[in-house]
Amino acid sequence: MAKKTTRKTSRTPASSTPGKPRSTDKATIANLERLGSTVAKVSVSGKDPIVDVPTRTLSNTSFNKRKRTLEMGDATQQRELFNLNQAKKFMQTMLLASGTKELVEAGKTTSLRGMYYKCLHTIAGTKEKTLGDQSESDAVLEDLEVMLGSLREELHLFAKKAGTMVGNITVIDSGDEIDCRRMGSGGYAIPSIVEPDILQFKKCDAKFVLHVEKNTVWSRFNEDKFWQKHNCILTEGGGQPPRGVRRLLRRLHDELKLPVYCLLDCDPWGHYIYSVIKQGSINLAFESERMAVPDAKFLGIRALDYDRCELTDDVQIALNDRDTSRAKQIAAYPWFAQNKPWQMEIAKMLKNGFKMEVESLITKDISYVTEVYVPERLRERDWLD
Amino acid sequence: MAKKTTRKTSRTPASSTPGKPRSTDKATIANLERLGSTVAKVSVSGKDPIVDVPTRTLSNTSFNKRKRTLEMGDATQQRELFNLNQAKKFMQTMLLASGTKELVEAGKTTSLRGMYYKCLHTIAGTKEKTLGDQSESDAVLEDLEVMLGSLREELHLFAKKAGTMVGNITVIDSGDEIDCRRMGSGGYAIPSIVEPDILQFKKCDAKFVLHVEKNTVWSRFNEDKFWQKHNCILTEGGGQPPRGVRRLLRRLHDELKLPVYCLLDCDPWGHYIYSVIKQGSINLAFESERMAVPDAKFLGIRALDYDRCELTDDVQIALNDRDTSRAKQIAAYPWFAQNKPWQMEIAKMLKNGFKMEVESLITKDISYVTEVYVPERLRERDWLD
Repeated sequence: MAKKTTRKTSRTPASSTPGKPRSTDKATIANLERLGSTVAKVSVSGKDPIVDVPTRTLSNTSFNKRKRTLEMGDATQQRELFNLNQAKKFMQTMLLASGTKELVEAGKTTSLRGMYYKCLHTIAGTKEKTLGDQSESDAVLEDLEVMLGSLREELHLFAKKAGTMVGNITVIDSGDEIDCRRMGSGGYAIPSIVEPDILQFKKCDAKFVLHVEKNTVWSRFNEDKFWQKHNCILTEGGGQPPRGVRRLLRRLHDELKLPVYCLLDCDPWGHYIYSVIKQGSINLAFESERMAVPDAKFLGIRALDYDRCELTDDVQIALNDRDTSRAKQIAAYPWFAQNKPWQMEIAKMLKNGFKMEVESLITKDISYVTEVYVPERLRERDWLD
Repeated sequence: MAKKTTRKTSRTPASSTPGKPRSTDKATIANLERLGSTVAKVSVSGKDPIVDVPTRTLSNTSFNKRKRTLEMGDATQQRELFNLNQAKKFMQTMLLASGTKELVEAGKTTSLRGMYYKCLHTIAGTKEKTLGDQSESDAVLEDLEVMLGSLREELHLFAKKAGTMVGNITVIDSGDEIDCRRMGSGGYAIPSIVEPDILQFKKCDAKFVLHVEKNTVWSRFNEDKFWQKHNCILTEGGGQPPRGVRRLLRRLHDELKLPVYCLLDCDPWGHYIYSVIKQGSINLAFESERMAVPDAKFLGIRALDYDRCELTDDVQIALNDRDTSRAKQIAAYPWFAQNKPWQMEIAKMLKNGFKMEVESLITKDISYVTEVYVPERLRERDWLD
């Protein structure tokens, strides 16, 4: 763990207010204008309008073992207007780029659903809609992210908000100073967009971040004032953490040099959550570059805890066929495939034949997880990497 | 709407700290002890141990039209130890009552899942488990609520946490003062348990509460500082609001006399959310007495908005068969059945043949919902009751 130090970022507090431009907006708008004027120039010169879309497939993704991050290759696909198979998608690309530009210029944000509605209309003189359903706009927006080199959040788009934070840190969110040491039993709701122009770190005394899977477990840790006793930040992401939570973990790790420890269930779902926090999803390698925390540690629950913690069979939930095949899929992910401890972990879980939830540790004692389990793992530096 | 006044509750701030007894704990423990000693007395006197469990069925529930609340009748069922069909459930009732007492005495809280694990073990000398799965402990805990006359939260049990709040109010949560006017873009995460011994209202200037269905819509209202311009409190419950959010709305309404306006989708799901906020669920009439907000208003989206707001067919989502039958079920609920405006609303939606989401108003303008739609409805006092 990092040494205990009080960090104060030099960043000036919140210059951005909702409705006012953010510092990255200028670059985003410039990128959007470049895209538009390239297409316009080609068109007026009488050539076929074409845009290059970086290929978001597994074959164009590689795992950089040294940096332990997913990286996108240089492959691109051309999207043409005068091609019957691509004309609609070309139109949608321009439409959503234009919709995004309006949004950024207005200094407002919206959800993917909102963006879908914003760009949905009947094409003049036809009965054809610009978009079939939201999956079409979502896919094009992902294309735009990689084409422009802008995170979705920089395009002023947000995903579902979920997750809470408490602990030894003060943040500034849209100009409001929020002391996460005084957030009661509820906590600070982590926003969907936590980019530096919206959220700044002010005073942080914490030594590390403990991220737990479920808010019920988070409540146990908060109630037992774990973050006070162990000088840390406590986060949860409501199961699979949304982008805002992942990006926040990444920023806490990068900018404040805080180690991130994850406490998740011993099951394929828990392993997958860890995998997403650590590396992101394979087909969104682009976002992983700014959202993944390759150094995140998996503190537990471990398959060997059944014996080590002397648990009873009350904690066992039998693995079903789906769990087993999912576990094997996860074991084959590039960052797990050549990681011997992880191979052993998954093999041990499969040999056990059962899953275990963090909440099942209550069979030992209601505060066993906060008073014994996690402190022991941290003291012994016993985790999976 | 209520007149604008600054309210300061006379309640003394947070005497309760997690781990310390709450003011209602004494009564809860007394109730639990009464249950235990009644069974013990009967047993030592050589009679068959029996407990009376209030009947939680539709037939034992009535809708009080004057008070507009659901009420439970007096019917009870006997649960006997020496009855092969009831012995296990009798044992589970005692086991969970005992587990709850331990929890309250320890001054700790847990989830229903945690309580299940806490009471799960193999019965000595057998291979039989005390509980099959969590549904068994959940049902018995609901029995205990009505037997003891204690809300689940008073038994220190909490449901999933979801939902956020911002606005012109300061609250005290577990001794921490939280100014909901300075909560940035994230907001204050509404706790699972908001009983008065955990959460107190301090300074409230707000005139009303606007509750919206989705956090994406909530973000639009927060970003546009709607609560500042219209002097209100803004809440969301992540879809179907969890108990903590419902109980908070009830307390804001009861104690601070704030009207509660709901902005939900024009579909059976939105109508059902309104119904649960307003009246609770029929088979949990007991909890409705302290969680429902019978005065809550439905601001929209209304079926007539399609014409009134001059929306395009882009906003239409066709009703499927399941929607149609669900709409008819909801129309038959006691509080809707004799409510003519609601009968007309549901009939109009069925006649339209389509649903509409709040987010679809973005087809007018990104801030149409915050700058036109809701202000107009409020000004014209145009809502369903």
